[in-house]
Amino acid sequence: MNEFGTKFRIGIFGTSHGPCIGAKVEGCPAGSRLSEAIIQAELDRRAPGRGPLSTLRKERDRLEIVSGLHNGKATGGPIVGIVRNVDADSSAYEVFKRVPRPGHADYPAMVKYGGHHDHRGGGQFSGRMTAALVIAGGIARQVLDRHGVALLAQTVQIGNVAVKKELPFSQAERAVRSSPVGCADRGAGEEMAEEIVKAHEARDSIGGIVRCSIIGLPIGVGEPFFASMESTISAMMFSIPGVKGVEFGSGFRCASMRGSEHNDQYAVRAGKIVTKTNNAGGILGGLSNGMPVEFRVAFKPTSSIARPQMSVDIVDKKPVELEIKGRHDPCIVPRAVPVVENATACVVLDLMLQGGFI
Amino acid sequence: MNEFGTKFRIGIFGTSHGPCIGAKVEGCPAGSRLSEAIIQAELDRRAPGRGPLSTLRKERDRLEIVSGLHNGKATGGPIVGIVRNVDADSSAYEVFKRVPRPGHADYPAMVKYGGHHDHRGGGQFSGRMTAALVIAGGIARQVLDRHGVALLAQTVQIGNVAVKKELPFSQAERAVRSSPVGCADRGAGEEMAEEIVKAHEARDSIGGIVRCSIIGLPIGVGEPFFASMESTISAMMFSIPGVKGVEFGSGFRCASMRGSEHNDQYAVRAGKIVTKTNNAGGILGGLSNGMPVEFRVAFKPTSSIARPQMSVDIVDKKPVELEIKGRHDPCIVPRAVPVVENATACVVLDLMLQGGFI
Amino acid sequence: MNEFGTKFRIGIFGTSHGPCIGAKVEGCPAGSRLSEAIIQAELDRRAPGRGPLSTLRKERDRLEIVSGLHNGKATGGPIVGIVRNVDADSSAYEVFKRVPRPGHADYPAMVKYGGHHDHRGGGQFSGRMTAALVIAGGIARQVLDRHGVALLAQTVQIGNVAVKKELPFSQAERAVRSSPVGCADRGAGEEMAEEIVKAHEARDSIGGIVRCSIIGLPIGVGEPFFASMESTISAMMFSIPGVKGVEFGSGFRCASMRGSEHNDQYAVRAGKIVTKTNNAGGILGGLSNGMPVEFRVAFKPTSSIARPQMSVDIVDKKPVELEIKGRHDPCIVPRAVPVVENATACVVLDLMLQGGFI
Amino acid sequence: MNEFGTKFRIGIFGTSHGPCIGAKVEGCPAGSRLSEAIIQAELDRRAPGRGPLSTLRKERDRLEIVSGLHNGKATGGPIVGIVRNVDADSSAYEVFKRVPRPGHADYPAMVKYGGHHDHRGGGQFSGRMTAALVIAGGIARQVLDRHGVALLAQTVQIGNVAVKKELPFSQAERAVRSSPVGCADRGAGEEMAEEIVKAHEARDSIGGIVRCSIIGLPIGVGEPFFASMESTISAMMFSIPGVKGVEFGSGFRCASMRGSEHNDQYAVRAGKIVTKTNNAGGILGGLSNGMPVEFRVAFKPTSSIARPQMSVDIVDKKPVELEIKGRHDPCIVPRAVPVVENATACVVLDLMLQGGFI
Repeated sequence: MNEFGTKFRIGIFGTSHGPCIGAKVEGCPAGSRLSEAIIQAELDRRAPGRGPLSTLRKERDRLEIVSGLHNGKATGGPIVGIVRNVDADSSAYEVFKRVPRPGHADYPAMVKYGGHHDHRGGGQFSGRMTAALVIAGGIARQVLDRHGVALLAQTVQIGNVAVKKELPFSQAERAVRSSPVGCADRGAGEEMAEEIVKAHEARDSIGGIVRCSIIGLPIGVGEPFFASMESTISAMMFSIPGVKGVEFGSGFRCASMRGSEHNDQYAVRAGKIVTKTNNAGGILGGLSNGMPVEFRVAFKPTSSIARPQMSVDIVDKKPVELEIKGRHDPCIVPRAVPVVENATACVVLDLMLQGGFI
Repeated sequence: MNEFGTKFRIGIFGTSHGPCIGAKVEGCPAGSRLSEAIIQAELDRRAPGRGPLSTLRKERDRLEIVSGLHNGKATGGPIVGIVRNVDADSSAYEVFKRVPRPGHADYPAMVKYGGHHDHRGGGQFSGRMTAALVIAGGIARQVLDRHGVALLAQTVQIGNVAVKKELPFSQAERAVRSSPVGCADRGAGEEMAEEIVKAHEARDSIGGIVRCSIIGLPIGVGEPFFASMESTISAMMFSIPGVKGVEFGSGFRCASMRGSEHNDQYAVRAGKIVTKTNNAGGILGGLSNGMPVEFRVAFKPTSSIARPQMSVDIVDKKPVELEIKGRHDPCIVPRAVPVVENATACVVLDLMLQGGFI
Repeated sequence: MNEFGTKFRIGIFGTSHGPCIGAKVEGCPAGSRLSEAIIQAELDRRAPGRGPLSTLRKERDRLEIVSGLHNGKATGGPIVGIVRNVDADSSAYEVFKRVPRPGHADYPAMVKYGGHHDHRGGGQFSGRMTAALVIAGGIARQVLDRHGVALLAQTVQIGNVAVKKELPFSQAERAVRSSPVGCADRGAGEEMAEEIVKAHEARDSIGGIVRCSIIGLPIGVGEPFFASMESTISAMMFSIPGVKGVEFGSGFRCASMRGSEHNDQYAVRAGKIVTKTNNAGGILGGLSNGMPVEFRVAFKPTSSIARPQMSVDIVDKKPVELEIKGRHDPCIVPRAVPVVENATACVVLDLMLQGGFI
Repeated sequence: MNEFGTKFRIGIFGTSHGPCIGAKVEGCPAGSRLSEAIIQAELDRRAPGRGPLSTLRKERDRLEIVSGLHNGKATGGPIVGIVRNVDADSSAYEVFKRVPRPGHADYPAMVKYGGHHDHRGGGQFSGRMTAALVIAGGIARQVLDRHGVALLAQTVQIGNVAVKKELPFSQAERAVRSSPVGCADRGAGEEMAEEIVKAHEARDSIGGIVRCSIIGLPIGVGEPFFASMESTISAMMFSIPGVKGVEFGSGFRCASMRGSEHNDQYAVRAGKIVTKTNNAGGILGGLSNGMPVEFRVAFKPTSSIARPQMSVDIVDKKPVELEIKGRHDPCIVPRAVPVVENATACVVLDLMLQGGFI
């Protein structure tokens, strides 16, 4: 089931080379004012041409809302938004039905669907499906915004270049949106761009890390255990193609920490109960604790690279050297930034609705 | 909702200091032979007294199946297993209603439930709830076993001690089960035990990392996007108290890798299509690809430490120095090993049933 | 899946001759004061010995809450209530594994579960499972009561005896609870009791109709289409063993009505918008419209009768004359009255929580 | 949530006067050959102009599949089909925002959605939404057909005209499809048509009953209790606008029957275990028992009638005489026949997939 959520429930559909890609959203509160321009702007952030040397495939994503809006407001019924696919050349993909591309879903998809899935452009496994997440998130973020909740994703590492210092939310937002790699630190951003150029020149690709922050959450968002904030956010993150790791707050560093160092002790600041540190990443027992929610998402290097790779013809089980033609993003991280941000918005709104906060 | 899964659906209930802790399981195929002794054995692995210096609280978990078994087989109806809580002294917890323990769910739970939740022993947020996961997993693993799927979790890091070499599955299983810290590498295990002792002597606690492997999976288990193997496994892992990070295959290391290095190229071995490396962690496009599924889970140091910590009285908003009495595991990782393993079994069985593999 | 509902979610478990029957309830708002005595009283209404000549099997249902209550209030976690089964003689049921009882689930259950289900006493298909519905409903009705919503089920027909005039809610409640057949009209109730006696004397059984009313609902409860009030209530009603029909308001009579007669025209009474008639049964477009919700539920005659019946040995496919021993209710309607009422309470509370009314 | 089903999961969207009406279908097995012409044919059966004097609003429903088909087969991903709405004059509906039409959802919808729903043409409560059910069912029936399961709905009563004898499935199908009122009995069908004409001439409308049969089902389809065949079918039926009652097999007649008469005794015919009667309507314990599944659905008379009716201005709470302009079907039953049939197909396929029959 390509569906996610309970009260704000999204379903994505379409394929990379089919007629369209779309999202169906249930549970957006009736009367929510929704700007199509804001959703379109998020789609534009995801569009290619953002990062250095990103794919040149002209992939204009023009939003069309076909259900659920009336006079600029949510009706309370399902909202459906689609982007039509422009004609794409699918001929290049025929070979991958027999010779799967390393790093892509080709091989297990072939086995799972008996060859009946739409294999063109990765079909329903295409990174292009994230446009649907952005549509849904573009709706969710507008509702969240009206309830004082804001999200910010930013690139914090590409290849071996990591930001030294992470800017606070307020300063980072504008910087991220104007950076070609989605990095708030201009200097690091320039180095990251070089890292991408180098990978491209080597006919290769490169990975990276996106960090996401959520501020303005009330206390108690999330449900214990299976619908904890971490469970639901990570489930969403790992549904984004290319994600290999998700960590909250101290993350993997916690393994070598002592409790006395890791525990965030409480204090009162300006009449508000806060924690002095935020190793918890703003979440305790699966529930938001009033501090900013912080998590990091690791993206692998783009699987489509220009270098020849070894694969196997799955019919006659013979090794085949495969060359992937066409232009592909040497690094998906810059375009993943708005995807992480908007996909997270869906999760947060769902949990807030579940918890009766909205 | 304390429920997880679609076809093999588990619900957990109870609290640490209430009458019992239990699990309800829906969707276990009718006629599955289920040994209560195997489930009990998994509960015993989770029991205290396993790790060095683990909590001395006598927490005997005796399984009682009250629904769904008939003549040693699943009836096709819901299976319910419970473990009664033995009398515990709850008086010590009264103070935490006003003065939340750092690192615990006390504060957001208090706000979320308006003080009506059962705060004793962490209530529904207690690490003790993982006994319910073990009951459900103890059922799931028996079904999986009959379909050739095996799981193995093991401790690979505690504090600053990490295993150097990870043993293959077959060699590791026995070693893990006989190690007090759940580590397949005896030498490293001894160092880890010392690490725990040192933390304890410092009236402190320490974190660690558990690695989990799944072998024998058919190709194509998992669903694209929101029910990907990574999404469902990570959602389950992050529902285990104390988990701060989850990564598959190359994990966070992928950020600094090139595509040519990260892509697992295909080869044919013994007539079977395999990949030469397994950076994917056995998953492509959210689907199992026939290689072992591999992931790592970071656990924070136990939140309950004997050292005094700063907290706040949430009623009069004044700082309070808090001392947590009683014995607590200085490291939860050894006891988390069977929890990770059994909880994962629930996810895998659910996905296999969803995909029609069983 | 033996689960129902979205926000107030119930799961039932156990079997007629297993260790217990129970209900797990998720989503009861934290802090709801819950009296176990009220739930027990509803269980007692369902207990045998209520109707004339009802089954003499001593089936004492003593409620035990094992999760989710703390200091008499809902904790916000799952609530689990069970009733232990007292020792029952299961030997009589062995024959039904090969020779299915007419009117019971024996035959399709045998095929579906390959003989692995617990066939004793009807197993998970037993009418005794309705005790679990009563437990869940006994919780739900207490929450509803505090929000001004009340339910009343009553027997309106048994065999050929139907009530002539249906009393208004306020007058009917006490009469129903004191009537051995659950009928508000004392005269009709006496005739109904005779109807049951006659059926019993003929070693036979008899059917009937239960009517249920819900008052105090706010306007707009229910969701359009699949979660309409009618869809959810009927789904619940048809899950009660023995139900063959459900109708709302005018019900099947609407087939021969004209629109001008059926449409409930609006009027203002005491400053409130009402309809002059209630053919809609209080529901328009799946949503409550402020009038009492009214529906009727048809129950078939008890399937277990003392008369010999023809069946078939499903192994050797030969006709067999079957005689069902033991005492069985000649009419299930009187005991179905509290089941209908409490099961409906679960649905109504769920829809009210879904709609944000509570 | 406008979603239904578990394994074959449908979601409907759109509104009567919005851009389109559509259905999203999850879980159609990959590789299922799907003819768009068959779906279109079902849409055409539902189209106006079928019954005598049906609405003249030109409502051409041209199917467009925008997701999930590749080379004429299901890909395994979500299938989305839409029909665009042709321009409709919505001006007439403005008044109903203040003065609700009797029998329609106007009033509770206004309250529930705070006036934000799309009120034009009934919006998401419009009978036109059933086109989406037909799209989904047009997919489901093709899969069922390949597994030997067939469905037939037919008109058995309109106003006071009921069919005397119900034809067996094989004979009835062609007759139903060629009858303007969807009735297999030509004589009765002509009388029904007159009944509709009379209602129309009286500026009124009339109700009726649709019967539906399912043949070819394996034994054991359905789940005990909440996902019983009756629960799921009735939930679907009551989601069709205008339905007031649903009964299976003997239905409401069972109330006055004795067990000895109602129980369907078993026999062996042609080596197959059958029941001599079918009062159960083919369902025992919620499971199909191998006999044809039979149920009846009562439809109220069309709510929109030309006669003046009393309503209330909900703002100033004053009585208003309302006249509904435009042409409306004086009887929705003929057009409801394919809706019942196709909507049922969705339920049956879902249950068969849940039970592992497909």
